[in-house]
Amino acid sequence: MTLQGTSIIGFGRGEIGGATFTAFDPSTGEAVGPEFHSASVAELEKACDLAAGARLAFGNLPGKDRAQFLRRIADNIEGLGDTLLERASLETGLPTARFAGERGRTCFQLRMFADLIEQGDWVDARLDSPDPERQPVPKPDVRSMLRPIGAVAVFCASNFPLAYSVAGGDTASALAAGCPVIVNAHFAHPGTAELVGTAVSDAARECGLPEGVFSLIFSTGYEIGQALVRNPNIKAVGFTGSRAGGRALMDIAAARPEPIAVYAEMSSVNPIFILPSAMRETHASIAAGLHVSVTTGAGQFCTKPGIVVIPEIAETIPFKAQFGHLIQQTAPHPLLTSGIRNNYERLSAGRELEKIESSGEVCGYGVGPSVFETDAATFLSNESLADEIFGPTTLLVESSEREELLEIARTMEGQLTASIHGTPEDLIENADLIAILETKVGRLIFNGYPTGVEVGPAIVHGGPYPATSDSRTSAVGTRAIERFCRYVCYQNFPNASLPEELKDENPLGITRMIDGVRK
Amino acid sequence: MTLQGTSIIGFGRGEIGGATFTAFDPSTGEAVGPEFHSASVAELEKACDLAAGARLAFGNLPGKDRAQFLRRIADNIEGLGDTLLERASLETGLPTARFAGERGRTCFQLRMFADLIEQGDWVDARLDSPDPERQPVPKPDVRSMLRPIGAVAVFCASNFPLAYSVAGGDTASALAAGCPVIVNAHFAHPGTAELVGTAVSDAARECGLPEGVFSLIFSTGYEIGQALVRNPNIKAVGFTGSRAGGRALMDIAAARPEPIAVYAEMSSVNPIFILPSAMRETHASIAAGLHVSVTTGAGQFCTKPGIVVIPEIAETIPFKAQFGHLIQQTAPHPLLTSGIRNNYERLSAGRELEKIESSGEVCGYGVGPSVFETDAATFLSNESLADEIFGPTTLLVESSEREELLEIARTMEGQLTASIHGTPEDLIENADLIAILETKVGRLIFNGYPTGVEVGPAIVHGGPYPATSDSRTSAVGTRAIERFCRYVCYQNFPNASLPEELKDENPLGITRMIDGVRK
Repeated sequence: MTLQGTSIIGFGRGEIGGATFTAFDPSTGEAVGPEFHSASVAELEKACDLAAGARLAFGNLPGKDRAQFLRRIADNIEGLGDTLLERASLETGLPTARFAGERGRTCFQLRMFADLIEQGDWVDARLDSPDPERQPVPKPDVRSMLRPIGAVAVFCASNFPLAYSVAGGDTASALAAGCPVIVNAHFAHPGTAELVGTAVSDAARECGLPEGVFSLIFSTGYEIGQALVRNPNIKAVGFTGSRAGGRALMDIAAARPEPIAVYAEMSSVNPIFILPSAMRETHASIAAGLHVSVTTGAGQFCTKPGIVVIPEIAETIPFKAQFGHLIQQTAPHPLLTSGIRNNYERLSAGRELEKIESSGEVCGYGVGPSVFETDAATFLSNESLADEIFGPTTLLVESSEREELLEIARTMEGQLTASIHGTPEDLIENADLIAILETKVGRLIFNGYPTGVEVGPAIVHGGPYPATSDSRTSAVGTRAIERFCRYVCYQNFPNASLPEELKDENPLGITRMIDGVRK
Repeated sequence: MTLQGTSIIGFGRGEIGGATFTAFDPSTGEAVGPEFHSASVAELEKACDLAAGARLAFGNLPGKDRAQFLRRIADNIEGLGDTLLERASLETGLPTARFAGERGRTCFQLRMFADLIEQGDWVDARLDSPDPERQPVPKPDVRSMLRPIGAVAVFCASNFPLAYSVAGGDTASALAAGCPVIVNAHFAHPGTAELVGTAVSDAARECGLPEGVFSLIFSTGYEIGQALVRNPNIKAVGFTGSRAGGRALMDIAAARPEPIAVYAEMSSVNPIFILPSAMRETHASIAAGLHVSVTTGAGQFCTKPGIVVIPEIAETIPFKAQFGHLIQQTAPHPLLTSGIRNNYERLSAGRELEKIESSGEVCGYGVGPSVFETDAATFLSNESLADEIFGPTTLLVESSEREELLEIARTMEGQLTASIHGTPEDLIENADLIAILETKVGRLIFNGYPTGVEVGPAIVHGGPYPATSDSRTSAVGTRAIERFCRYVCYQNFPNASLPEELKDENPLGITRMIDGVRK
């Protein structure tokens, strides 16, 4: 498949003209073709108009028809074969094996949502029985369920060109909910975006869906992305990226005449607390596990542990030695973009702390992994040490004071995760620490590492600001679909005009809440 | 019980000093004692600090203990007897019988949430089983459930001094979720607020709850209420009131360093579409039913129908004559505040349309009910006719053009409700109208009126902006509890440290989702 370098606007393509840009190979820093053409405001508006036009038809499709679309997207993505893996690798400096895995996750997510909406329980259908005899007024027949919120804008993530980009979790969950999607491609992997965008667009056509169910916008700078969030036909936004970028979109969305929900997954340092018993008994395996969690994918995960609180005990010395050695031995790796590389270097240089780093040679956008070390008093008196540095680095904070541990937890901003290493008895003894952490994070992990987010019904990939813009939801797993829905209620409606999910005879055979009891 | 006129700050009282205000009797426009003392910023901050201090202990209480608290609040409110009904009547100009009903609803809501959290299913507990043998990495044990979001600020509604004020739906659902609550009293019914506030505060003490679970703030002007929304210990806001007031709080919350969710229930004209068959067959009963819906409580409901689209057929003539006659015969009634009265008169005066109004004499904050009339072309070319006028007035829009009906629906802002009068066959024939309305409202009503919102598991009292600030939720019914929660996930946690709801043995016996299936 030859890349065209133009936006996908409904079933058509964007014009050639206007600003252009290319991808870069992070391992060399050199531009790679072809040229991509930024969408014009008029093209963006056309995509939004088409999405609004497709809203009713797509939103009212039976779940099984939307499921077919999602499965077709997965099939088409797999049909791209190695072309996709190689392009993603070229644009990111990450190995093709990584993208074989990420493609698997992407297609798994699409099929998971297909299964979910085909089965149908997810709509939370509720029926409250009428009582015409009730005094002083008759009780009406009241039924309700989740319905799609309208067209959704999705911003691709730099660090997940497949699983959180064009056909990633945000797009899959929005389409599953019945919302048309307009994707804003990430400038760092436009070729990957075009390949996947074509797979989605083809699937829409193959499934006979209305034009406008999906569009893909290329752009340089922020203007087009911001205009997308401002467009009155857009009813919600999904974003994965930096805190500054997410907050900018939140502010734009909140200032609209009609404010809309933004689901931004932004910034997290994912603290790990290693309790003395764990350090005593398993420091070697913790050093090895932590090293993998900090350096895999060049540390470019929102769940990378950026702070590790360690006790001041004898075994901490070999732990630090081993972890430092592993970091030193890890070869430098290119980061995704020159901007990410520059931030990594600027923020690292700002830390006047003891540091061990990889001594290997860098090229392109490469940086060496590193580990900083400090004590709790220094950490607590220096707010910027709690900030995220995106990339393969972490900060060890040494403390044996229980009160310091609690204070670190109390002063922490919102996080996607927190992890505790210890014994089950430690958890009980540290119930106060757990109770504080629980108010700060979306996921608590025992004797494990935050990277590698499981995809399923129970997962929560979320957390209080600034980890996300909306702590009530999850960006991963089946719960992600709820972000793009709202409840609609039907009072005294004739059976024939009710959605299938709410009809008397329950034709879909789904579990429903009848008078408060799920059946 | 003697009113003290001071804020309730945890288990203490606010100082006497600073700005003072009194309630007014709307039927005379005269001040009624005692003086109420505005809280200082220091008192407000103390209330917020106490709430933050109570957060963990209250949020970790078993559901049955919080249920006991909610039931005790209901008992204490009932224990206030006629004192409460008489004070509410004095401060609002509405009859005590109305408050007997509203007290019933308030206590019903408190006990409904008590039942909900005692039963326990509501937390949406999910367990995904581990698989240590999975390749390439073991599948972890992942469990999650809803947990309280933190301290909540509740702003009392002018028009529901009991059911949407100090111990109303927002407070009941937030306390049920496990969130401490700080209530900002409405200036129009401070005596009612103090009575109910004392009932809540007493209940907290009687149940042995930590100080700070509840505070009640009196204030004049906006400064204190805005400071409440800005306070970093506040994690969500509930508000019922005007569009301008709700939007102001939304903007403040969005601009915080840590933005928070605002659940503002604001502005709605609740359109009613009367189709020709209904007008032909039931115009007399529709005129009577509509009259009750428009004038009950002096039309001061967020669900009052403000626009009624009627067909141009022969039977419309007697319908209009009868409805106009009923409006004319309805005595003027005082509105809740001079501000509401002034807005009603100003907005009514701005409508240069045919008008029929009550001819009775007004006093105090009184206004006469009225009905305006226009045609669809005029309506569609004059945006301000779609704006809400709070009070006993409505606008008849005559149209027999199907395309005009669809256009009225399409151009409509978000609404709490829309109603359709017709036959079941009409609904099927007008599926396109229903499909549009469904994207605009929280509740669709067939052959009924929007006032009188049923309280139960299936109800949705919500809708797209500006009906509410957050269309994904409901302000009424059991779903309201979800507004004050977020999901928290526990990965590979030892059974002993899991919340009861997630333990292996399911000690609470609740329904849970196990590997995607509810059991």
